[in-house]
Amino acid sequence: MFEQILENVRGSGPLIHCITNYITTNDCANIILACGASPTMAEAEQEAAEIAAIAGAVDINIGNLNTMTVAAMHKAIAAANQNHVPVILDPVGAGASSYRMDTLRDFFANYRFAVIRGNVSELLAVGGVASNTKGVDAGAADAVTEENLEGRVAFFKQLSARLDAVVSVSGAIDIIASPEKAYICRNGHPMMSCVTGTGCMLSALTAAFCGGNHENILEAAAAATAVMGVAGDIAYQKTMEAGQGTGSFRVYLMDAVNLMDAETLNGGMKIEVR
Amino acid sequence: MFEQILENVRGSGPLIHCITNYITTNDCANIILACGASPTMAEAEQEAAEIAAIAGAVDINIGNLNTMTVAAMHKAIAAANQNHVPVILDPVGAGASSYRMDTLRDFFANYRFAVIRGNVSELLAVGGVASNTKGVDAGAADAVTEENLEGRVAFFKQLSARLDAVVSVSGAIDIIASPEKAYICRNGHPMMSCVTGTGCMLSALTAAFCGGNHENILEAAAAATAVMGVAGDIAYQKTMEAGQGTGSFRVYLMDAVNLMDAETLNGGMKIEVR
Amino acid sequence: MFEQILENVRGSGPLIHCITNYITTNDCANIILACGASPTMAEAEQEAAEIAAIAGAVDINIGNLNTMTVAAMHKAIAAANQNHVPVILDPVGAGASSYRMDTLRDFFANYRFAVIRGNVSELLAVGGVASNTKGVDAGAADAVTEENLEGRVAFFKQLSARLDAVVSVSGAIDIIASPEKAYICRNGHPMMSCVTGTGCMLSALTAAFCGGNHENILEAAAAATAVMGVAGDIAYQKTMEAGQGTGSFRVYLMDAVNLMDAETLNGGMKIEVR
Repeated sequence: MFEQILENVRGSGPLIHCITNYITTNDCANIILACGASPTMAEAEQEAAEIAAIAGAVDINIGNLNTMTVAAMHKAIAAANQNHVPVILDPVGAGASSYRMDTLRDFFANYRFAVIRGNVSELLAVGGVASNTKGVDAGAADAVTEENLEGRVAFFKQLSARLDAVVSVSGAIDIIASPEKAYICRNGHPMMSCVTGTGCMLSALTAAFCGGNHENILEAAAAATAVMGVAGDIAYQKTMEAGQGTGSFRVYLMDAVNLMDAETLNGGMKIEVR
Repeated sequence: MFEQILENVRGSGPLIHCITNYITTNDCANIILACGASPTMAEAEQEAAEIAAIAGAVDINIGNLNTMTVAAMHKAIAAANQNHVPVILDPVGAGASSYRMDTLRDFFANYRFAVIRGNVSELLAVGGVASNTKGVDAGAADAVTEENLEGRVAFFKQLSARLDAVVSVSGAIDIIASPEKAYICRNGHPMMSCVTGTGCMLSALTAAFCGGNHENILEAAAAATAVMGVAGDIAYQKTMEAGQGTGSFRVYLMDAVNLMDAETLNGGMKIEVR
Repeated sequence: MFEQILENVRGSGPLIHCITNYITTNDCANIILACGASPTMAEAEQEAAEIAAIAGAVDINIGNLNTMTVAAMHKAIAAANQNHVPVILDPVGAGASSYRMDTLRDFFANYRFAVIRGNVSELLAVGGVASNTKGVDAGAADAVTEENLEGRVAFFKQLSARLDAVVSVSGAIDIIASPEKAYICRNGHPMMSCVTGTGCMLSALTAAFCGGNHENILEAAAAATAVMGVAGDIAYQKTMEAGQGTGSFRVYLMDAVNLMDAETLNGGMKIEVR
């Protein structure tokens, strides 16, 4: 099934409108291109609605907010909602500042999101649960483990129902949950958290996959996570074989997403449904 | 001749002032350094004129406008015009939003550009021709082909005369046109459009080449296109040989521009004059 | 001693709050991760103080100022000063425009910096000495050489006393000076200046090293310079062996910082104390 999701992205090449942080935007644009979609990062208030309305999906990332980008985000999400364009929200560093929490509160009061993708702390913060956020990394206390997996899956299914959105939770074990069904993914390597923007890139990839699969948002989000995880596994192996570090890992990660095919994906992914 | 153009850039190391989009600005700065020039990306309204006035060339890229950068662009272009500093315009996504079209209209009403470099759709939009712009990629219907080349060359020569600027049109076949003379370049590979910013990078490279060759703007723009195209050919070959993807291709492209020499350029470029 | 400084960063993983330019911010975040610290690039005025107050160090880089970021910088530095969080200042292009000089004047009138890191021209500009700044590169006339080293060391020790900050001066020969003691470092390669942001990256690395070593700011700044220099030596050698250019050099530089260990550092660094 996931290979069909990927195929649909490559076949349709959806336009993905990102309003994101400037730290990782180049990587986000490149990963969207690497999987066969087409990025546009327009973030002027003057044009955000116009472009979101014709996009295949919109990716909203709050990693580096300012007054101008927040204004543009409102216009883009409203236009996307109105035109049935799926919106992916990455609540980067949610809980790290009141500015981010206030912005998120505004968003949830006014708009609908197709997918909310973040690390555990961010999703817990979004869910109103107290969490140990340090900057933009997931607090260790919040990590999904084999021990707490059962409870976390149930929690995120409920959160999905409450937020009326697929929740895609990244970590050593990833959970991608709708109210009734959750995918659990065990791919990827800790080195991914030693490169900035791998989370942002996964959100961009999720937007691209949703853009090419409007009728299968849960599966699109899960497939994006699986592709990123398998790519991380491949990139880690290449990096270690060559005795290299995070600089090379980042390059190999992009290569692996670009070269991903049905065989590699199906052979590499460790996916479970609950 | 083109190797002399490149030599002049390396010999004089011109300061290139870019006001561009933040998505690809790191790549733009790096390609300017890779060819031997010196980048500065200052985009505050408070300093844009001061820096543009002493630059060797100014690169204006509308890929991610906002109120602040548009104000800085006006100051920079005005100062450059006044001080006879060539200005290169990259009308990214022209036609994709009214904000971009309005900004361009303002520019053309007030300033002179040495070179306008974009894809076919963008140049057609600039020329007031209806085009099929989807985001920032050239609509397929607009592509320059061997079949329509004759007409397109004539069209862009006329557009060059009308806009009083060299027009540098990128695609599978590139056209770099003055009112009387056009270079046609057949280098480069489709993989270049699978990496974000290769267009922006070519505009930055064009600015660097113009900065080192004020008396030969047409040839400077054509040489920049040839260098980028040959670098694309080399990078594609290296990527394929190593079984890699767009992440590695992006690295090899920068390497190839940095290592470009007269022999490689003359041996690799497929240039024609009409 | 320097290997202990590095060990402290990896052991404590300090949160480093950067308000920097968008051109090189991805590289800055990645080098902070590569050495074992944790970056956050929050630059909204609304959250800058909140985040700076809980950071291990704050990195302020004036390479691309605008009204919004300058406002955020003021909030962040004030909060850091109040909470005894060391602030590293990178006066990029100081002297290149009055906007930058005015901003710096404001900073020095109101705040204290732990380290000021820049090239010779920038530090001379900061010190009020006339210098030949061209864009953001050190004017050749200002370079530290074996001939003028004695005088420059004395000058920067005095400047350190006057500014009440460690001054970290980068070039072919690096000087990291407190009022009484200076480290001189002869590592690194000219190719580092052919990649944008190696200076910004060194400032970010300096912030990471200070964040993990609050009691040894001079040594932390010197160790950061040594690590960057040795990494530059390694990356240059790898690039030359493979016949590659600046694109690959940039990747190898990140790899080398990420893989740096006590043995490589002690074996490679060329450090002298005066």
